[in-house]
Amino acid sequence: MAKTDKPAQKPQKPLPVKAPAKVEKGKDNHGLGVTAKKAEDMPEWYAQTVLKAEMAEYSNVKGCMIIRPYGYSVWENIQAYFNSRIKALGVKNAYFPLFIPEVFFKKEASHAAGFKPEVAWIANTMESGERLAVRPTSEAMICDSFSRWIRSHRDLPMRLNQWCNVVRWETEATKLFLRSREFLWQEGHCAYATREEAEKETLLMLAEYATLCEGLLALPVIMGKKTPKETFAGAVYSTTIESFMPDGKALQCGTSHYLGENFAKSFEIKYMGKDEQEHYAHTTSWGISTRLIGAMVMMHGDDKGLVLPPRIAPTQAVIVPIILGDPEKILARAKQVASQLKDMDIVLDDRDEYTPGWKYSDWEMRGVPVRIEIGPKDVEKDQVVLVRRDTGEKQFVKTAEIKKALEKLLEDIQQNLYKRAKAFMDAHVTITPDWNNLLTAISNKRMAKAQWCGEHACEEEIKAKTEGVSSRCIPFDQPKITGNCVHCNKKAKVWVLFGRAY
Amino acid sequence: MAKTDKPAQKPQKPLPVKAPAKVEKGKDNHGLGVTAKKAEDMPEWYAQTVLKAEMAEYSNVKGCMIIRPYGYSVWENIQAYFNSRIKALGVKNAYFPLFIPEVFFKKEASHAAGFKPEVAWIANTMESGERLAVRPTSEAMICDSFSRWIRSHRDLPMRLNQWCNVVRWETEATKLFLRSREFLWQEGHCAYATREEAEKETLLMLAEYATLCEGLLALPVIMGKKTPKETFAGAVYSTTIESFMPDGKALQCGTSHYLGENFAKSFEIKYMGKDEQEHYAHTTSWGISTRLIGAMVMMHGDDKGLVLPPRIAPTQAVIVPIILGDPEKILARAKQVASQLKDMDIVLDDRDEYTPGWKYSDWEMRGVPVRIEIGPKDVEKDQVVLVRRDTGEKQFVKTAEIKKALEKLLEDIQQNLYKRAKAFMDAHVTITPDWNNLLTAISNKRMAKAQWCGEHACEEEIKAKTEGVSSRCIPFDQPKITGNCVHCNKKAKVWVLFGRAY
Repeated sequence: MAKTDKPAQKPQKPLPVKAPAKVEKGKDNHGLGVTAKKAEDMPEWYAQTVLKAEMAEYSNVKGCMIIRPYGYSVWENIQAYFNSRIKALGVKNAYFPLFIPEVFFKKEASHAAGFKPEVAWIANTMESGERLAVRPTSEAMICDSFSRWIRSHRDLPMRLNQWCNVVRWETEATKLFLRSREFLWQEGHCAYATREEAEKETLLMLAEYATLCEGLLALPVIMGKKTPKETFAGAVYSTTIESFMPDGKALQCGTSHYLGENFAKSFEIKYMGKDEQEHYAHTTSWGISTRLIGAMVMMHGDDKGLVLPPRIAPTQAVIVPIILGDPEKILARAKQVASQLKDMDIVLDDRDEYTPGWKYSDWEMRGVPVRIEIGPKDVEKDQVVLVRRDTGEKQFVKTAEIKKALEKLLEDIQQNLYKRAKAFMDAHVTITPDWNNLLTAISNKRMAKAQWCGEHACEEEIKAKTEGVSSRCIPFDQPKITGNCVHCNKKAKVWVLFGRAY
Repeated sequence: MAKTDKPAQKPQKPLPVKAPAKVEKGKDNHGLGVTAKKAEDMPEWYAQTVLKAEMAEYSNVKGCMIIRPYGYSVWENIQAYFNSRIKALGVKNAYFPLFIPEVFFKKEASHAAGFKPEVAWIANTMESGERLAVRPTSEAMICDSFSRWIRSHRDLPMRLNQWCNVVRWETEATKLFLRSREFLWQEGHCAYATREEAEKETLLMLAEYATLCEGLLALPVIMGKKTPKETFAGAVYSTTIESFMPDGKALQCGTSHYLGENFAKSFEIKYMGKDEQEHYAHTTSWGISTRLIGAMVMMHGDDKGLVLPPRIAPTQAVIVPIILGDPEKILARAKQVASQLKDMDIVLDDRDEYTPGWKYSDWEMRGVPVRIEIGPKDVEKDQVVLVRRDTGEKQFVKTAEIKKALEKLLEDIQQNLYKRAKAFMDAHVTITPDWNNLLTAISNKRMAKAQWCGEHACEEEIKAKTEGVSSRCIPFDQPKITGNCVHCNKKAKVWVLFGRAY
């Protein structure tokens, strides 16, 4: 799935930050902080932020990343949230093989053609002529199982999901979380009796993704349908949520595909209906991946490093005692505050080898939403200082009221991050009937919304002559059609969002 | 890890049950129930039980299995339990690449030699001479990272874990959950400053595994050390928990390895000590896999199918209304009971296309610990009938008291399954000083405990001449040495548990 992740654009400038330079043994990198400026050199800033906050690292295997505990715990939080949502909707988790026989791929012809260039193969079976792929996605494998498990309308709907690793043999430069040969994702695969039900749930899952991005990651998205050229290989149509990054590029955050009877016909997924006739099932698939973590980092981070939305942050607040005067007294108060907050995700940083100032920078770099400072004066006044990571604002709170105040502050930060990102995205969409305006807007790091004819040839031409401008989606929210195609000047059929994409 | 899973024994008789025969489209297999007898044909009984209860299935990829939702939910329960345990111990989850360069393997020579025969390779890079393995275990990858991440004694201990898939290119017949080319597991990898700490935690993790097996899966185990021949490739020593299956074979359920400085020296994992000198770290690794699910199935199941211990069962009880007389009244009562039990994992089977008798058999086959029957007489008497899956015993309970009664019954079943299995294992260990007795015991489907010289040559000879008898472990619980080696008659050094193994 999410095949449309990778429009056929020319390779981007490779990341200047490479693993060997940054993770050299004996260098205390993270003490240095993030040195690149987000506004000046986004790729360098991004790589430094992810590396220095210890979210992830380049591995010694080309194209593969290591997800470090801090980054992985964000993924675990996404998993826990999303599992609770999909299980409530009747989806069940399962696990299918990593290896997929080439003959399976070939059953759905356009699917096979779409994935062919980026499949990794197993050498052990090559000589015998049995070609085994390392899964780039599991439609073929799971549809084969559906064909055995589904017999009657009583077996439907069948809703499965798996959390797993997938491999796409990328040749472009690795971008931590955003582009790597192996990544982690969930792929949902469902079969339904009717087209209506399948289409309804295709949209339902997309809406779940939007809720996850906006509610959990504070990442505003635009929901829409992919144009035919950007549709998943084998789908009738694909729906997508698109976010907009501070460097002016769109980033596809999740896709949900209505596969129609395409896979059902290729894999013989038939059921006996209530009418005692055989019918093909209608299938869907939907996925989100660890790239969401990258999107969140890019969206909210600043020159000090990460800024994590409180609802997803592994650590919601850090207590930094300022050891001056009577250390015992201050530490005792810090511990008391920690125990008042024990049902939240709090860290008490009582390491004695670092100064409070060093700790402030370190935790800022790691994006912890709130810092709680406790110094001698605060103990005296029976107060603590809360410092927001997103705005840097300070607030003095009575010790007894800290829990309530912190909970409110975390919620404020969550809302603020979302609002800020939403305002940024909304301010970066140019609506225009003019092709040159559209190109100017996009080269000015914006997206452009324009009316379009809907024709394949026109879309091909746009892509060919712009080197990287692509349709991101046909937004569900469609204004009235009032003119002609922004590109070919034929009669317009839909509004389309154009941009450059990750 | 768990390399010693696979002692070099001759291939066992292949399983008579194969996927194509059993999952043929259009056949309502599970209505037939399990037809094989556990005591007569254990492999056939096992395969039927796993397939018909929809725990797992053979896939069309040789050697790979599909874990179906019912089986996967058992794995999710194991994960949830074990994650909560290891996180409390300071272990953090992370994710490392699926692909491992051959040069990494080669760094620890005995490790490379041990795994070489069963590695799957990626074809894409073969021509360029860059050999990439699909991970059979991740010591090499993670030790390479440790060498970058560990600099000071302050970085230690470093305790990481990953939940992932691993691949070992088995040539023996696939046994669902027990032997497959790809399986799911967790692999913990830790680095410590001192030998003492590393050895202590090697044992701590083994004890965690024992608690998981005995407490959650009702699976009694014997804790011990592996003999040198059975030690993990690259370890100083390996510890193991061994269970004993009803067909007379031992099954290794988890291993925890003390790797000493072996990997630290090969991968240059050094830290600056408090003494301002450089030291090598001491590393450990430990793993359990989806084979635990197979062990649990074999141990507790009976001729009706699965018997699941309540603490791990995805469904703890099923309510089967017996629709006679006034259906509304009975269904209303069934719903009322379900709502009384809403914070437990309960299913109300109100399907109208099946008879109560069919449902009884179906849920028995799926191993649900308790069946709750509600018929017209029960409604009249304001009672329900609880039927235990393990013994078949019935019990009448007042509706108002059902929750308390059910909780107690589930706990009784959990205890009973453990006690039964423990009594079975204890009754199947022959203690003998005589070699021929030992062989007779093992051919009578028992294990044998005997005194042994501890010499490699002696162990090699035993294996060579017995075709499959191996040392399972040197139990931690060691009686006093009183005689000579059961095999070579030299002076004995330890008591060893011998047997045939999966």
